Amino acid sequence: MSIEAAVTELRKALGERFATSGAMLQVHGQNEAHFPETLPDGVAFPETTEEVARIVRTCAAHGCPIVPWGTGTSLEGNALPFDGGITLDLSRMDKVLAVHAEDMDAVVQPGVTREALNTELRATGLFFPVDPGANASLGGMAATRASGTTAVRYGTMRENVLALEVVLADGRIIRTGSRARKSSSGYDLTRLMIGSEGTLGIITELTLRLQGQPEAVSAAICRFDDIRGAVDTVIQTIQMSVPIARMEFVDAMTARGFNLHADAGLPEAPHLFLEFHGSESAVAEQAETVAGLAHENGGADFQWSVRPEERTRLWKMRHGVHYAMLALQPGFKPVVTDICVPISRLADAVAETRADIDASRITGAVVGHVGDGNFHTSLLTEPGNEDDMRTALDLAKRMNDRALRMGGTITGEHGVGRGKIRYMAAEHGEAWDVMAQIKRTLDPQNILNPGKVVQIG
Amino acid sequence: MSIEAAVTELRKALGERFATSGAMLQVHGQNEAHFPETLPDGVAFPETTEEVARIVRTCAAHGCPIVPWGTGTSLEGNALPFDGGITLDLSRMDKVLAVHAEDMDAVVQPGVTREALNTELRATGLFFPVDPGANASLGGMAATRASGTTAVRYGTMRENVLALEVVLADGRIIRTGSRARKSSSGYDLTRLMIGSEGTLGIITELTLRLQGQPEAVSAAICRFDDIRGAVDTVIQTIQMSVPIARMEFVDAMTARGFNLHADAGLPEAPHLFLEFHGSESAVAEQAETVAGLAHENGGADFQWSVRPEERTRLWKMRHGVHYAMLALQPGFKPVVTDICVPISRLADAVAETRADIDASRITGAVVGHVGDGNFHTSLLTEPGNEDDMRTALDLAKRMNDRALRMGGTITGEHGVGRGKIRYMAAEHGEAWDVMAQIKRTLDPQNILNPGKVVQIG
Repeated sequence: MSIEAAVTELRKALGERFATSGAMLQVHGQNEAHFPETLPDGVAFPETTEEVARIVRTCAAHGCPIVPWGTGTSLEGNALPFDGGITLDLSRMDKVLAVHAEDMDAVVQPGVTREALNTELRATGLFFPVDPGANASLGGMAATRASGTTAVRYGTMRENVLALEVVLADGRIIRTGSRARKSSSGYDLTRLMIGSEGTLGIITELTLRLQGQPEAVSAAICRFDDIRGAVDTVIQTIQMSVPIARMEFVDAMTARGFNLHADAGLPEAPHLFLEFHGSESAVAEQAETVAGLAHENGGADFQWSVRPEERTRLWKMRHGVHYAMLALQPGFKPVVTDICVPISRLADAVAETRADIDASRITGAVVGHVGDGNFHTSLLTEPGNEDDMRTALDLAKRMNDRALRMGGTITGEHGVGRGKIRYMAAEHGEAWDVMAQIKRTLDPQNILNPGKVVQIG
Repeated sequence: MSIEAAVTELRKALGERFATSGAMLQVHGQNEAHFPETLPDGVAFPETTEEVARIVRTCAAHGCPIVPWGTGTSLEGNALPFDGGITLDLSRMDKVLAVHAEDMDAVVQPGVTREALNTELRATGLFFPVDPGANASLGGMAATRASGTTAVRYGTMRENVLALEVVLADGRIIRTGSRARKSSSGYDLTRLMIGSEGTLGIITELTLRLQGQPEAVSAAICRFDDIRGAVDTVIQTIQMSVPIARMEFVDAMTARGFNLHADAGLPEAPHLFLEFHGSESAVAEQAETVAGLAHENGGADFQWSVRPEERTRLWKMRHGVHYAMLALQPGFKPVVTDICVPISRLADAVAETRADIDASRITGAVVGHVGDGNFHTSLLTEPGNEDDMRTALDLAKRMNDRALRMGGTITGEHGVGRGKIRYMAAEHGEAWDVMAQIKRTLDPQNILNPGKVVQIG
């Protein structure tokens, strides 16, 4: 294996679209979580699928690792080049190639961000619903099987990608799926690629399922005295089949973060943030049903609004949660982790996690897409303080153990990357070996994002 | 390879739960489509996962083919033992192992049929929505990635299976997925197994997502002068995001079949059969919206009803379509095929298909789950009449070509089996080679349902 030979060859082939400057390597060596800076040996900026395939063939010839990169917003070190090699920055492949309004689908390059796509769609009456908070690239979102605030209604990337174009480790270009809404035609390679974090292939085109913009949208916010009242409201809402569009839990510590970061003026108590989509009457009916459930579970101050500016303010605040956390202890870095459990275990999982953080030396917050049983913690550590880091990682470990004990999963939406790999054997048992078998078959040299999701060799 | 040695060994191990009688072989050598009788060498009736694993290990030791079998209702020869060997009849693994009402999921053995599960769920207020018409086994439905009348609202088996237990070709038992509603934890082996038709592993347990029974259900029926009016109503309904639960198209020939088979008293014209789920007011609102669209598209006699007996009559008639077709020409056998296209192409695809049948020597009907862009034809052939069979297969071929030309897929829900394998290269190109690579990795001897989905050797 010779990374150096690949770098030399790619520099010649790509010219100024191959960067080795310190600044550019640094941009691609960062992350928004706690992983140390990890620099690639070079950054390639392909503009076409054929160019991606050529770069992959060059790297394959030299056994050089390739790490696909979208916007760098992943949280488990998913796009960090721990073994060095080439970072493949897909941000120049940022075209919306087609919008088929009648079929409610769009074909995009992987570097298109979800906000860019939704801006482009504005005039069509359609939108792409998956919303992980960050303005991530759609290729990265597919690779991580992202979801976020709207998955409870519209599903995750798994449900919202119809077809992919993928460059394999040997440079072959394949197409998976079609523009048909369903198919029984062979193995589901689309779903195999979604969530594979660039370890099985590089996504170079996506066909996405779109949704009609709802006739009416309303948002609501409700305060609770305790975690259990909020979570029980969530569980009952799901069980009553209310087609709620967003259902977000924030704990008292998160509310404090919003106050510090966004001057939110929230009582420092657990809250639910809600959104309803539908016809005018359906939205009113849904809000009334959930308000009733909240009231029975000790909820207070249920406020709902159809005013767009209030909705925008609410979700802007929610999406800023990462920075709200940082506002709690300026200068600290977060250890972020996410788990997902069956909803009957959600109240226990959240309460145990909250108690575990409270009993520790560090500050942390719990926030989540609770309609799916999915929640996150953000655990603040002082840079360089090893006790803090150890405490945070221990808390995260106990969260993962809790998820598995409760029949859940070690990650609802952040992916495995490097951070979760230590829990994979415990979650999957022999099925993890099967994942490695598939990886070895499709990438025998282990050049595609090595060291992530599976362990080879 | 020695099928004989495997048969001898399995007879000894399973006693009376291993059948080689002519009658039992015949039961497992039939199909509801046009494939000739194809007998296995023996039929095993396992009762536990461990027993399935032992049978697989025995077959693996002797290189003997194993074909999993649910209820035998598949339509593309998916469960016929074209290479001989053992049919694994899973009908004795028919227990509902757990119903988690609070989490809205159920754990079942593969031989549980969808009707048996829904009967068991009746008291819980929950139901399993996927409904392919036949009372198929849930293991078989997952293996074929089945869908049917309700997929437009609730999704296919792909969206409604949370986790699987699977016996691999070497006898390893793996678990894929978990009871969490979403996960980003590694490759999506659950979705890889769903639709693999028993060629990658044998499903021995399924965790299924359930739905809350809607507060209100109503059904409607509407007649159209032409195909286009009906299909345009469908397209507009989907585009307006009406959360319709069922939206079925039947053509004039199918209506005639219903009249002959079920004394339906329908005008011999295209119809839509519709169902709405939701709150009382939502259901009324949806029906009103669709009635308006139907009226604009030339629909007449839009009749809707909330009476359960009328709904039951409607869907019983619809589910009897296979026999309604046979009533058109008693004694004839159907060549059945299904394709799925983007909905903007649906009217063209249906109209071209109808015209193609009309121009041919044989009788055929078009019927479909048009909300998904999916439709079927049933082409009647006289047993032993080679001209009929050639004509039917030519019509089917042109339907498949049409699907691909329109950006669709060669099968929306029947699977590949043996019947569709000839179109796989055209639909998937090099991605079909990738499917074969995965097959070779997980089943290097090609003993699991050989000759289906992929071509090995």
